[in-house]
Amino acid sequence: MKRKNIVVLCALAAAAVLSQGVAFAAERLSKATQSCLECHESMPGIVKQWEDSVHWNAGVGCYECHKANKGENDAIDHYGYLVATIVSPKDCGQCHPKEAAEQEASHHAEAGNILNSKDGLLGQTVGGEPAVAVGCRQCHGSIVKTLEDGTLDPATWPNTGIGRVNPDGSKGSCSACHTRHRFSKEQARKPEVCGKCHVGPDHPQKEVYEESKHGILYYAYEDELNMDKPKWVAGEDYYDAPTCASCHMSAAPGVGVTHDVGDRLSWNLRAPVSKPTANSKEKLATMKEVCSACHADPFVEGFYTQLDQFVKLYNDKFAIPAKEIRQLLMDEGVISTANFDDKIDWTYWELWHHEGRRARHGAAMSGPDYAWWHGIYDVAKAFYNHLLPQAKEACEKAGKPELYDQIIEKYIDGRPEHQWYTRGFDQKRLKEIKQYYKKRYNQDVN
Amino acid sequence: MKRKNIVVLCALAAAAVLSQGVAFAAERLSKATQSCLECHESMPGIVKQWEDSVHWNAGVGCYECHKANKGENDAIDHYGYLVATIVSPKDCGQCHPKEAAEQEASHHAEAGNILNSKDGLLGQTVGGEPAVAVGCRQCHGSIVKTLEDGTLDPATWPNTGIGRVNPDGSKGSCSACHTRHRFSKEQARKPEVCGKCHVGPDHPQKEVYEESKHGILYYAYEDELNMDKPKWVAGEDYYDAPTCASCHMSAAPGVGVTHDVGDRLSWNLRAPVSKPTANSKEKLATMKEVCSACHADPFVEGFYTQLDQFVKLYNDKFAIPAKEIRQLLMDEGVISTANFDDKIDWTYWELWHHEGRRARHGAAMSGPDYAWWHGIYDVAKAFYNHLLPQAKEACEKAGKPELYDQIIEKYIDGRPEHQWYTRGFDQKRLKEIKQYYKKRYNQDVN
Amino acid sequence: MKRKNIVVLCALAAAAVLSQGVAFAAERLSKATQSCLECHESMPGIVKQWEDSVHWNAGVGCYECHKANKGENDAIDHYGYLVATIVSPKDCGQCHPKEAAEQEASHHAEAGNILNSKDGLLGQTVGGEPAVAVGCRQCHGSIVKTLEDGTLDPATWPNTGIGRVNPDGSKGSCSACHTRHRFSKEQARKPEVCGKCHVGPDHPQKEVYEESKHGILYYAYEDELNMDKPKWVAGEDYYDAPTCASCHMSAAPGVGVTHDVGDRLSWNLRAPVSKPTANSKEKLATMKEVCSACHADPFVEGFYTQLDQFVKLYNDKFAIPAKEIRQLLMDEGVISTANFDDKIDWTYWELWHHEGRRARHGAAMSGPDYAWWHGIYDVAKAFYNHLLPQAKEACEKAGKPELYDQIIEKYIDGRPEHQWYTRGFDQKRLKEIKQYYKKRYNQDVN
Repeated sequence: MKRKNIVVLCALAAAAVLSQGVAFAAERLSKATQSCLECHESMPGIVKQWEDSVHWNAGVGCYECHKANKGENDAIDHYGYLVATIVSPKDCGQCHPKEAAEQEASHHAEAGNILNSKDGLLGQTVGGEPAVAVGCRQCHGSIVKTLEDGTLDPATWPNTGIGRVNPDGSKGSCSACHTRHRFSKEQARKPEVCGKCHVGPDHPQKEVYEESKHGILYYAYEDELNMDKPKWVAGEDYYDAPTCASCHMSAAPGVGVTHDVGDRLSWNLRAPVSKPTANSKEKLATMKEVCSACHADPFVEGFYTQLDQFVKLYNDKFAIPAKEIRQLLMDEGVISTANFDDKIDWTYWELWHHEGRRARHGAAMSGPDYAWWHGIYDVAKAFYNHLLPQAKEACEKAGKPELYDQIIEKYIDGRPEHQWYTRGFDQKRLKEIKQYYKKRYNQDVN
Repeated sequence: MKRKNIVVLCALAAAAVLSQGVAFAAERLSKATQSCLECHESMPGIVKQWEDSVHWNAGVGCYECHKANKGENDAIDHYGYLVATIVSPKDCGQCHPKEAAEQEASHHAEAGNILNSKDGLLGQTVGGEPAVAVGCRQCHGSIVKTLEDGTLDPATWPNTGIGRVNPDGSKGSCSACHTRHRFSKEQARKPEVCGKCHVGPDHPQKEVYEESKHGILYYAYEDELNMDKPKWVAGEDYYDAPTCASCHMSAAPGVGVTHDVGDRLSWNLRAPVSKPTANSKEKLATMKEVCSACHADPFVEGFYTQLDQFVKLYNDKFAIPAKEIRQLLMDEGVISTANFDDKIDWTYWELWHHEGRRARHGAAMSGPDYAWWHGIYDVAKAFYNHLLPQAKEACEKAGKPELYDQIIEKYIDGRPEHQWYTRGFDQKRLKEIKQYYKKRYNQDVN
Repeated sequence: MKRKNIVVLCALAAAAVLSQGVAFAAERLSKATQSCLECHESMPGIVKQWEDSVHWNAGVGCYECHKANKGENDAIDHYGYLVATIVSPKDCGQCHPKEAAEQEASHHAEAGNILNSKDGLLGQTVGGEPAVAVGCRQCHGSIVKTLEDGTLDPATWPNTGIGRVNPDGSKGSCSACHTRHRFSKEQARKPEVCGKCHVGPDHPQKEVYEESKHGILYYAYEDELNMDKPKWVAGEDYYDAPTCASCHMSAAPGVGVTHDVGDRLSWNLRAPVSKPTANSKEKLATMKEVCSACHADPFVEGFYTQLDQFVKLYNDKFAIPAKEIRQLLMDEGVISTANFDDKIDWTYWELWHHEGRRARHGAAMSGPDYAWWHGIYDVAKAFYNHLLPQAKEACEKAGKPELYDQIIEKYIDGRPEHQWYTRGFDQKRLKEIKQYYKKRYNQDVN
């Protein structure tokens, strides 16, 4: 804790004594909620979490959120009360309509659609249903099924995936980020919460953030960021570091809070080939306003110049040629059109979905190691050291070696950025480098 | 620090002034310890750590722990005092008999046995002794050897592996978790301490925890968990998040503290094929009681339903077939029975020991990315893209291509969950997905 | 916060009220700086960061650091003031000459040289310029170019690489660690800051630290380390855990602060084959003095004994043979001398540059998982499972199978530590292990 905060804290102490003094103001709670609490003392954790929440303060208790209406398919009779286990965004939206509407309109709410996409097919076919339930759906959201008695199908619950399809038809789970039963703004502003899903080989945003100056400063100044303030404007209420929320959701001078995480994203960095998003100019302008809370214009412009060139490199040098080469192999019958049964299928998939995303996320969020070693280096290695040799082998096996020759001619020898692959590194420069290394490491490095 | 704690802290301030006032109460310490301190001022760090410990408070000093008896093989004469460098669980057990006994009976204490297992052989043969010393043994524990003068063999010391075999024959190292010389309860309850060993490609429990809601909440509410309280019962003394210790060792309503980390584990998730542990029902019941401090029964039941199905998927679809296929290749003389000299040996080993563990740990501790991308996805990739092609190649090289045909017939074509591998993905669904992706990414995705 | 600190803090509170009372002492700031602030209110973040800095306290404002002299190539006329965007180590050195000189003489300042090394060639040729800009150069430093009007070329800026070549010819960027505009000692002492670059597959020092006892204790006692003290001597001002800075840069009893990060490094653990650094004995002696703040001599000696044997194992068993085998293949024309066009090129490169570094860093900083699983295990896998088979295949393709036989004879069969590869594991021991595993896992493990 900073010394200068002590004054404020000491002043607050008296007030705290008073507010703690009234302890548990049962009269503020509905009779139904009081009734819930009588039994649910046996799960002390969640009761106490809620007692620390703004909800408790506002007299919003168990029943206010969990009550169900007759006829709802997940309504269960629970000791005389009709309740539902799941509190959906529709329920939360009764008090928080703006937030619920923004979330409902966001890419986040659509995350459950993946269940019907290639990723879903991959999970279900190559993996298996139980792996989809415990893996994919814990982030993307399950389609929660109710059993005949209104209880939830254990194959689909528990689940707090951000794109969960709820029994009431609404999409999402507010507690994906505002974890129950404290539902804290502060907790949802922390980078860890995003790391439940935005982590790992194919979307390592958490790891990139941790490596970036933004993350470094966050961990240095975490306690000084006033993260529990209702008003939390970058550059006004805190200024030492942004969290994920700061750039993607929270307020900055001239920029309002949004629960639509895509509102400020001008590039689609997830697709095999990156393209600008719809209304990208507007979104970019909003993001730049956020940057401007702490960075001068030339800094921001320089950053985006470098990012744009990086994405172009990924697209033009690697993603598009890789895609076209594989397509050609399928068109010519060299590999099958059934996915993941040829080695090159796995290579191509990971090139864009894993390595290529790591590279682009690394560049977009200033994590140099992710941009390069986990990123373009791995993309290039997949391209030169796996995809091309696998294409060659497949052509040879199919009795069409000339097809590979054509590929090399068109995509490699015909392009200056790839010619080194067939013609070798510049010998003069290689020699210089050997001399440099010899001095640096006191040994030959070949 | 939370504002509400300030009241308490201000109240404690006066007391603190007094207790600090008596500073260093030399008279509480034995003469021997006072004698130690005279010289060991030159290592101020450990002295000050100890001054912050409960041991100092209790008058337990250097000599009380380090004194040795004549005839002990690690006893050294140190300026007139007979002392031992290592304070073993037997020594600690003089004051902490329950904890020492529980640890001694636990899987942790057996960790040193790995030195005589396949893992040990792998390390010593494929790696080499110095890698075993600095790698394996720093977690598993070394067999600490004494030299003729009672000092410790530097090839085996320093070492704080949890299964260390001490010169006095006792097994383990309390300071593996309660790091010397502060020996703090609080420090040992933090997840970082487990991460000294439970981390990495083959047992990433720390990474899984960080990704899980449990870990996310821990990092959000770390300062509110009262981790320095002697009594530390989930749901009573803290309720915002559990640490590793909470679920595996610490108290919950109706559940006592244990230093046997296996006491609540109902699955063996480390083995090639997972099986229930001995007395698994009892262990499961205990773990569920811990869960119940914060979770309702249907939540806990749903969680275990999903976990059990996940483990079954891993076992039945991947682990058992992989094991049988490799065994068949050995039985038929297609590959040698000497390990790690065929590519398929490495593939099979990593399939269960690395990827399969990641999957199972990810599922068991609610880390979706570890359950899927680092888990079953990698298991499936190893199975389809490496193990099967390597089996094929080995059969062909051995002049037994028909053996591979038999493998495919029995394990792949004969099983609905694997048929896609030879028959391709469902073409109708593939087409739907292409349409979905085309819309999502504004491009063809093949 | 520790209770015992409360007394001090309460005492400081009154003082804090007073010092905060004078709020913004405009009269301490130069007119030029006051002039800057009038407009730059629109970037509130950096202004407030600076207001929290020691610089503000000392009356060092925008203009004092950013002022430029006529004729400097990055000087720009900015509303009547001649300023430069980049504040270089030369500028910082006006007030901090010792620190600037030490940094200038360090390996850190030379990091930009990599741009002309093999790594640079790899990045530029295999990757591409934009990947080098966003990846390599964000750590190593760009050669910052100025445009005709004195503004900075966005292809080279923003950049805070530690070896940045500045427009004034100086090398480095103080804000690489002391992030602008707070320039905090405390922040630069935290391990996160080093993790901007010392992270990832080829130099995972951050990850190793986190796994080590040092890191575990840091995260347990972070708030008790007095990291904001100007005087920060290990064992005196803090004693619960060291950070990266503690061992490599900061003071210990008898050891002064240095900004030359190489001053205490006795091994070059980055090179293909590790060798002692220049003046390694002196450097080792200094490092051991730092260790001695908390560790007894036998502990330190044991640690270095194990480390030295580990490095020797890496060198002799893997690095040197791998290097010689690949060299032989080039000498005999089996593979080309153009890098990265043969699979074995990638294997060898990652063996020393990625896996071999992970192993050595893991051993040197006590991260057992990095020493073994991410380290020697991966080195051994690369050596036996990739490099040797690739050498065999290359020899066969080149019609020189006898060359591979010679390699095996000389490097494998001729050396006891490698003989298992051709002769298999010791069958007696394998059998014992199978029995052990059978008991442990209740199943056959092959």
